[in-house]
Amino acid sequence: MKKRFDNFAPFLAPVPAAVISVASKKLGDNIIAISWIGVAASEPPQIAIGVRRDNRFSYKHLQNNCQFVVNIPSEDLVDSVAKSGTIHGDGIDKFAECGFTRIPADEIDVPLVAECPVNLECVVRNVLNLGSHDLFIGEIVAVHIDEDVITDGKIDPAKLRPLGYLPNTGKYFGIRTPEIFSH
Amino acid sequence: MKKRFDNFAPFLAPVPAAVISVASKKLGDNIIAISWIGVAASEPPQIAIGVRRDNRFSYKHLQNNCQFVVNIPSEDLVDSVAKSGTIHGDGIDKFAECGFTRIPADEIDVPLVAECPVNLECVVRNVLNLGSHDLFIGEIVAVHIDEDVITDGKIDPAKLRPLGYLPNTGKYFGIRTPEIFSH
Repeated sequence: MKKRFDNFAPFLAPVPAAVISVASKKLGDNIIAISWIGVAASEPPQIAIGVRRDNRFSYKHLQNNCQFVVNIPSEDLVDSVAKSGTIHGDGIDKFAECGFTRIPADEIDVPLVAECPVNLECVVRNVLNLGSHDLFIGEIVAVHIDEDVITDGKIDPAKLRPLGYLPNTGKYFGIRTPEIFSH
Repeated sequence: MKKRFDNFAPFLAPVPAAVISVASKKLGDNIIAISWIGVAASEPPQIAIGVRRDNRFSYKHLQNNCQFVVNIPSEDLVDSVAKSGTIHGDGIDKFAECGFTRIPADEIDVPLVAECPVNLECVVRNVLNLGSHDLFIGEIVAVHIDEDVITDGKIDPAKLRPLGYLPNTGKYFGIRTPEIFSH
């Protein structure tokens, strides 16, 4: 039996637990865990992230320097990802605090997270004020993939074991790779 | 060892396998499986979907009637979802073809998919032409949830067992509910 809910927080599942890195000359760098994220278009390849306008740190980075990296963690990194989602980056080295290592990007001035097997360098092409959040739409300008998550030139989900997040629960999940459904 | 890729198709994981229903007076109704989807903002609650501009059917529905429903399937529905992602809706009853049942929505003129445990009625507030795709940003105006996926007033991921999609593979996955990570 279906029940109607009003004032229900946005829900979508399963969604990724992505780690976004940002940086600006003035503010240094920072990382945030984000699940309000989705692919927006294929050509050119674009990803949209929703960032709270009252987020006093990462939102300012994105306004100062319209670049970000989408770092896709494996499930082994759940502790680091959870930490990046709860502690604030102001005045601390959040990379070190979360156990993450910086690697310089190729095309933008924002570090990649070394431990995440997939890193997408993005340049913001559109920003939309949606109320609580701004939607930053970034074009993917370079992709980095750990060779050990690749099989036959493609990302292998069973090797990547991507980490997901369950909105409204504060919990994370892994995917069931032995039972991937083919069609 | 990280390797750089250019011209790599957009990748994000894990992402949902959502079933979007659309309808217009002129064209009737239709359903499409979409994984280019993400929550965009919390207040007001908004969801963004990327729809190919050359999609000859659903894209036209959305242009004629700026409303859609995000139907969130459980993994049991993988065959129906996969079918909705591969067959075309022009001239056929795609709901029947995929084994889905219509329920009238409360606030919009687009049917919900009865079999999907969560249904979000959305009204388009912004459309952005991003090249291959238009990004339709819909405000969630009503939420319907099957009572049997709710525990203590919240959606229970272990009961919902949401279905995900693995971009660039054509494969679907379930989440590992016995091993949900709490933080």
